[in-house]
Amino acid sequence: MTFQRVAIIGLGLLGGSIGLAVARYLPDVSTRGFDIDPDVRQRAREIGLVGEVCDEAADAVREADLVILCVPVGAMGETARGIAGVLPADALISDVGSSKQGITRVLGEALPNHAVIPAHPVAGTEHSGPDAGFAALFRHRWCIITPPAGADPDRVERLAAFWRGLGATVETMDAEHHDLVLAVTSHIPHLIAYTIVGTASDLEDVTRSEVIKYSAGGFRDFTRIAASDPTMWRDVFLNNREAVLEMLDRFLTDLAHMREAIRAGDGETMFDLFTRTRAVRRSIIELGQDDARPDFGRASLS
Amino acid sequence: MTFQRVAIIGLGLLGGSIGLAVARYLPDVSTRGFDIDPDVRQRAREIGLVGEVCDEAADAVREADLVILCVPVGAMGETARGIAGVLPADALISDVGSSKQGITRVLGEALPNHAVIPAHPVAGTEHSGPDAGFAALFRHRWCIITPPAGADPDRVERLAAFWRGLGATVETMDAEHHDLVLAVTSHIPHLIAYTIVGTASDLEDVTRSEVIKYSAGGFRDFTRIAASDPTMWRDVFLNNREAVLEMLDRFLTDLAHMREAIRAGDGETMFDLFTRTRAVRRSIIELGQDDARPDFGRASLS
Repeated sequence: MTFQRVAIIGLGLLGGSIGLAVARYLPDVSTRGFDIDPDVRQRAREIGLVGEVCDEAADAVREADLVILCVPVGAMGETARGIAGVLPADALISDVGSSKQGITRVLGEALPNHAVIPAHPVAGTEHSGPDAGFAALFRHRWCIITPPAGADPDRVERLAAFWRGLGATVETMDAEHHDLVLAVTSHIPHLIAYTIVGTASDLEDVTRSEVIKYSAGGFRDFTRIAASDPTMWRDVFLNNREAVLEMLDRFLTDLAHMREAIRAGDGETMFDLFTRTRAVRRSIIELGQDDARPDFGRASLS
Repeated sequence: MTFQRVAIIGLGLLGGSIGLAVARYLPDVSTRGFDIDPDVRQRAREIGLVGEVCDEAADAVREADLVILCVPVGAMGETARGIAGVLPADALISDVGSSKQGITRVLGEALPNHAVIPAHPVAGTEHSGPDAGFAALFRHRWCIITPPAGADPDRVERLAAFWRGLGATVETMDAEHHDLVLAVTSHIPHLIAYTIVGTASDLEDVTRSEVIKYSAGGFRDFTRIAASDPTMWRDVFLNNREAVLEMLDRFLTDLAHMREAIRAGDGETMFDLFTRTRAVRRSIIELGQDDARPDFGRASLS
């Protein structure tokens, strides 16, 4: 057994899913949880996201050997400072945030006397809040652990074993590389999706009603991503600025290249790109990271 | 009954689905089909995409009262010229192409003595070829008819009734407006998806293996669209250049605005956009144009 008493701070999609996953896959581990929103705590009690919902963060962490912060990236520092005084000396502190360099620094400063090992389960849906969680969220997904310099290898391994227990495959890398990888696989796709949905909503010569009616031509896929939690995503872009700007500029260079191909009527350049990209899709499906059925196996709406 | 004998030229995803849909929903209508690829014709016979698969386009259209061209946009002109000599004088010619101004001009020139009324069913999947078709593809989807100036209203209505028979909701608009609407709801989303998948594949500091492993963070949604048929999409961008460039430039302006917000750490601008875009998603789901379940109802991979 890797840990006996897990505290989960923040009971939204990720925190709730961890609670449910522990109950299902690691039934000998007890969980306590806290959320700053009393309505979320109430709902978490009703649907049993964790073994015990506490009205104070301090009560949730007081006896924990693993504390997982599942709050927006921008709230990590304040949350950590709020529990610093009552954390058991040997408790391991981790999180689930989508950017790791900033979090590592903030948590290290807030908890200078504790072991902090950040982690990022690469899993989620466009839904948020306590009702969005489910136990299988992490199955067949990767969890990236980013041990800070000098982290105890035994603690890293215990944390890895915990995530493997919830069904994830664990990789470790440094926080800087993590932030670059996630910028391209997650942050830029979200930025692009939010932006094109905004562009389409603001047109004068195409009505919003038309955009919605004819969305099956491709646009609707972007709206799923653009329905993700605004607070979480604002904080990601505020905290992974450099890697996001670097990847965004590479994308903009490539898009300018395609714009010129369209302007010049250069079909060969288009055909080359459109053929290469199919191979990436095939690899993702072969690795079990997406549903091979057409349209992601969307329900037939007939 | 709107038509008795329908000829389908091109037996890929769209043409094959029309054949299957007619058989299921309009069983009194007969279908003949042709594809320029003998392997596709052979496969179409094996799986019964149409009532009769002909080895010459001329034989498919000789007795038809409706001919639907389901070939890539760039092949429309040559296909139309190839059947011009044998088309019955009163046959209606239509198509399923994704851009309408260019097709209207090309078909009008190729068939000056026939009635041509272009149409575009806004439906599809990332799969292509004869095995990709299915009868329900057009159910609860829109079909946009773009009658050229002077088109006979009775023929427009007969074509509309045919598409309604296959389960679609029909709208009519002029070809220029169609091309603008589809540029934003379909063509730009495809261009962006192809480009970001290309960008991610070519990075040196992030491996392709990492891109694939961590694609569940958002990237994998783009790879579905970027797996679409390369020939079809090359032709769309070659034939809807002006509207695509106009919409692309609006998107680039908005993206530059978001880039500046990230650079400046302007969380308010981000939060405003990320909140507005959720409403568009809700509307699409309310209109039955997407699956409300998380992750499009993707199969649980556990």
